[in-house]
Amino acid sequence: MTSVGIVGGAGYIGGELLRIISGHPELEISAVTSSRLAGRRVDGNHPNLRGRVDLAYLSPDRLPECDVLFLTSSTVGDLQQRSALVSRAKIVYDLSPDLRLADPARYREHYGEHPAPELLGEAAVGLPELHREALRTADSVSVPGCMATASILALRPLADAGMLESTVTVDGRVGSSGSGASAGELNLHAERSGVLRVFAPLNHRHQAEISQATGLDVRMTATGVDAVRGVQVLCRATAARGITEAEVRGVYRASYAKEPFVRVVTQKRGNYRLPEPKILLGSNYCDVGFALDPASGQLLLIGALDNLVKGGSGNAVQSLNIRMGWDESLGLEFAGLHPA
Amino acid sequence: MTSVGIVGGAGYIGGELLRIISGHPELEISAVTSSRLAGRRVDGNHPNLRGRVDLAYLSPDRLPECDVLFLTSSTVGDLQQRSALVSRAKIVYDLSPDLRLADPARYREHYGEHPAPELLGEAAVGLPELHREALRTADSVSVPGCMATASILALRPLADAGMLESTVTVDGRVGSSGSGASAGELNLHAERSGVLRVFAPLNHRHQAEISQATGLDVRMTATGVDAVRGVQVLCRATAARGITEAEVRGVYRASYAKEPFVRVVTQKRGNYRLPEPKILLGSNYCDVGFALDPASGQLLLIGALDNLVKGGSGNAVQSLNIRMGWDESLGLEFAGLHPA
Amino acid sequence: MTSVGIVGGAGYIGGELLRIISGHPELEISAVTSSRLAGRRVDGNHPNLRGRVDLAYLSPDRLPECDVLFLTSSTVGDLQQRSALVSRAKIVYDLSPDLRLADPARYREHYGEHPAPELLGEAAVGLPELHREALRTADSVSVPGCMATASILALRPLADAGMLESTVTVDGRVGSSGSGASAGELNLHAERSGVLRVFAPLNHRHQAEISQATGLDVRMTATGVDAVRGVQVLCRATAARGITEAEVRGVYRASYAKEPFVRVVTQKRGNYRLPEPKILLGSNYCDVGFALDPASGQLLLIGALDNLVKGGSGNAVQSLNIRMGWDESLGLEFAGLHPA
Amino acid sequence: MTSVGIVGGAGYIGGELLRIISGHPELEISAVTSSRLAGRRVDGNHPNLRGRVDLAYLSPDRLPECDVLFLTSSTVGDLQQRSALVSRAKIVYDLSPDLRLADPARYREHYGEHPAPELLGEAAVGLPELHREALRTADSVSVPGCMATASILALRPLADAGMLESTVTVDGRVGSSGSGASAGELNLHAERSGVLRVFAPLNHRHQAEISQATGLDVRMTATGVDAVRGVQVLCRATAARGITEAEVRGVYRASYAKEPFVRVVTQKRGNYRLPEPKILLGSNYCDVGFALDPASGQLLLIGALDNLVKGGSGNAVQSLNIRMGWDESLGLEFAGLHPA
Repeated sequence: MTSVGIVGGAGYIGGELLRIISGHPELEISAVTSSRLAGRRVDGNHPNLRGRVDLAYLSPDRLPECDVLFLTSSTVGDLQQRSALVSRAKIVYDLSPDLRLADPARYREHYGEHPAPELLGEAAVGLPELHREALRTADSVSVPGCMATASILALRPLADAGMLESTVTVDGRVGSSGSGASAGELNLHAERSGVLRVFAPLNHRHQAEISQATGLDVRMTATGVDAVRGVQVLCRATAARGITEAEVRGVYRASYAKEPFVRVVTQKRGNYRLPEPKILLGSNYCDVGFALDPASGQLLLIGALDNLVKGGSGNAVQSLNIRMGWDESLGLEFAGLHPA
Repeated sequence: MTSVGIVGGAGYIGGELLRIISGHPELEISAVTSSRLAGRRVDGNHPNLRGRVDLAYLSPDRLPECDVLFLTSSTVGDLQQRSALVSRAKIVYDLSPDLRLADPARYREHYGEHPAPELLGEAAVGLPELHREALRTADSVSVPGCMATASILALRPLADAGMLESTVTVDGRVGSSGSGASAGELNLHAERSGVLRVFAPLNHRHQAEISQATGLDVRMTATGVDAVRGVQVLCRATAARGITEAEVRGVYRASYAKEPFVRVVTQKRGNYRLPEPKILLGSNYCDVGFALDPASGQLLLIGALDNLVKGGSGNAVQSLNIRMGWDESLGLEFAGLHPA
Repeated sequence: MTSVGIVGGAGYIGGELLRIISGHPELEISAVTSSRLAGRRVDGNHPNLRGRVDLAYLSPDRLPECDVLFLTSSTVGDLQQRSALVSRAKIVYDLSPDLRLADPARYREHYGEHPAPELLGEAAVGLPELHREALRTADSVSVPGCMATASILALRPLADAGMLESTVTVDGRVGSSGSGASAGELNLHAERSGVLRVFAPLNHRHQAEISQATGLDVRMTATGVDAVRGVQVLCRATAARGITEAEVRGVYRASYAKEPFVRVVTQKRGNYRLPEPKILLGSNYCDVGFALDPASGQLLLIGALDNLVKGGSGNAVQSLNIRMGWDESLGLEFAGLHPA
Repeated sequence: MTSVGIVGGAGYIGGELLRIISGHPELEISAVTSSRLAGRRVDGNHPNLRGRVDLAYLSPDRLPECDVLFLTSSTVGDLQQRSALVSRAKIVYDLSPDLRLADPARYREHYGEHPAPELLGEAAVGLPELHREALRTADSVSVPGCMATASILALRPLADAGMLESTVTVDGRVGSSGSGASAGELNLHAERSGVLRVFAPLNHRHQAEISQATGLDVRMTATGVDAVRGVQVLCRATAARGITEAEVRGVYRASYAKEPFVRVVTQKRGNYRLPEPKILLGSNYCDVGFALDPASGQLLLIGALDNLVKGGSGNAVQSLNIRMGWDESLGLEFAGLHPA
């Protein structure tokens, strides 16, 4: 068995890593850290893991050596502690924004000055559909943001095929789990229930990742919606002259035909004709779809996923499966529920 | 105009008092206090009042004199401050649990030792349907709890008519606004959404109020449900031998025929045959209904209301309308929404 | 009292007309029709009106004469019946799409051939903020669509001021009540709960109304969200060169300073900084707000309202208040609830 | 591989059978029937199965022979068709109410006259925790109702231990998926969202199953809540004199220590101290817990499960695993999601 350590296991991404890894036939969890909950049982705040994960949280400074490490939140605020942590494992998956942008200027624009800009651009990108080859050998991997993943998977095939004009708007919608497990008045049930909260009216930080991955000029808005999980992105683009629906579908199908976790969804009938996070909760799928108005060239590209799985923990485990030469779907087989 | 002060205007009950009073033709708000938000605009945390209430919060120690005072939360923790506050007005409505129980022993069982037991039993009860006469002259009024109000209005007519065996169970369900506006992990949207949280499996504190008001032996459970507002109580009783459905309906109708805010709901058809908080949000109604199994004598009595209105602010304003000799419905005309 | 007839009173817009009119001091309901529910009590399917509206539905062919008529759904499918209906009243408010577009070609594009194109362009537009003068005397009024109203109120002041480049995208979000009260698998709770259903990926029909009202080239997408009521529109535009935030705010404030039901919402703090339908349910407000990125000229304009009130019944009643010379807010005073 | 046929695969229980069986290493789906959808793709109405189940619905009369058959809804209305169907397989799991009650009189009371009373009492009960031995060889199995399963698992150990007085009330709460996938105004999102709908105020039909399984006098109420999935039952009982909390916990633990899918949940801290369906969606767990007031002997027993899994499809597959001598958890490993 390959041993896994999770740094920051009290949050929701940490919980999903625990759920997935505890059901993974090749992995075992050797340590889970939390500064706040050190000494407490892991299933105390992840109650779905009762009878599944029989562990207590460790303080981060007691992290033992392990084969693989997952970092769930930013560690560049204390570079010395970061060094100590990453030295515990040969292979590290970083799910925080720390390493996502290669260009320090881009990072600065959205997050402020990077404390260790020399780290930028070194990690492989934990998005298997685009970086599978690099992931086979990478020991340092940065997993992209949830709305960035959905947008990149919706945009990239058409951008690569030269089918898009350069400016794209992205309208991201995300559930409350995207705000994390820490209390705050903004996320109280009474305040968050029923909202359509435009928390980033312009220039949401994920637009930098999407631009970096697609070469497009991206303008991104984000809205918190009344759901616990789920991301949906609506990317508005203008198709190059004369592109047809069949061509768009053809490019998507060619790109994703062999991908285990991307489905092209453009149905003519039924209640679920376009990508919809409702049916993806708990699964590692990213569904992509589109609509084209041939007369005007308007193109709407849609991506949907579970922000905590394909938008985080699932991408990380899929990347690890690739790194270890295992079946890429190991531990990620859950189909999603309908209805739910 | 009669001037009103609200002590503790940052919470949800305070917000509803502000909404109702700002639309009341005989009342004007002269002061709203909040220790935490002193100096901030009132519509900053009650955004529905933008353009309606143009006030800033005062520190409680700056409360001016006013005709009527509403206390929204407990003040017996600092009896000196309490005295200072209540001295500002001739008429005081206390919406906290401080004065709800007449018997110090009963209070102790649910809340601990009362800091000023001599206050108990002095205030009139702010439940117009039962205490209208006392409320015409009372200068100190204690408004009952939200689930207590619904239960008492469902139980009392039948208890008075001698139709109930003495032991009753109450199953209360309440939305997240009942937990107040203060942040806490327990009430995060991601943790509270979709729950059926049995937060009081036995002996919920409102059972003491219900016992006091009905003389019954009450056993109460409470569950937090996925709603922001709303209370529904299911009271299981055993009917005295031979009672018929027509008799139960007759007693209810006789009790509530002239009440402006209690409706007897036992429909034979339609989607809303029994009391349901969904259609009561924002209104001052308490709907009551029942089902009887004549063979076994099983009786289910149901009450529903908006916990922040008839379960708090609305009862207080209705009581004040009575005290001042105004139309009892002033400021409380809103019908509720359907669908919502 | 002015007598009112409602044709099509079984649906949700009909229900809101009934709620508002039953609380309006100058209006009385003389008839409510429903083909499907003729003979049944009105409060049977609008349970919030119990004790408020004591009427039964009439068959449309039994509609009596009345002073004012509201048509809640399309009547041009049977022009003879339509003539009979509108002949019953001097003043008619049509809340259906029948008369919303002046140009038959535009109508055809979204709804198919109009059965009576000669009716187009004759009615006044039931949007008081833009057409108050015409509404003072108009006897035939067409009330715009819910998402169109929010978009037009967000866009029009800036379009009039020449501040917008001509192409605008509109991302509309709407609750399930916008789909009406008729059963259908698509709108089952289990299928509709938690959705982000992109039911109109391109060219939603309301874009024709918005174009007509603003002169802009509008491209509209619409998504059904997990809410019963509420509309929010995100309009992406490009500001003319050099426009500042202060100028945008200035134009909005000048346009809406005297409007009783439009608020400009762009707060720097708090949980509700931009327009949000959650706090508007039951109210007649349309809140508008914006964000501007001066560097790129990106402008996001946001409108929010209750689709059944300001998006339908409320606009109609406000228009009638204007027609009759009454206070424009009569019957529309409800502030909205927070939290809800 | 063992071949499986599903009769009635268009509904929600059918969908969950398909999801579970398509991920089961020993089973393959050979046919799925639906009268209404014959000829249509299965993933058209179960969109979570896209890429997982590549089948079209068959008309029931074209059901081929298979090793195991699941019947998802009542078949006793047409006994000839029923015979034809069950003749196709050696082993049949019936998830409808048809065979759940052994006593025709009890059946009559809740469902009307049974068309084939000779079938009653013949099938084994598909509740592995109580009937594992019988299930090892049974070729005809009747799977209990969702609320019955939760109640029986909560009540039975204490009833067997003689710890309960004979009369018990059950307050069942259930999500909208329990009403099935067929359209109906009652279950429209706008009508069902936010409800606490007491659809069975007394004598819900599952009380007959619970009585049959426990020997207790059961009085059951049921409420539809705003959730898609999930059942929670609150069983109020009176403990025999002198019973302690430790004794109750001991009995539960002894009964369920070796059960793979029953967990005893009575935590002293955390947000999820008692059984809660929110964390069980998609899983095959039934969590049980309790609270005891030693002074009065009041006992509240709580059970929670996913109505479509442990309340139906999961119990059926677990029973089949037992029948075939496989690991009892095959195909049922999903842990449930938190948060969700």
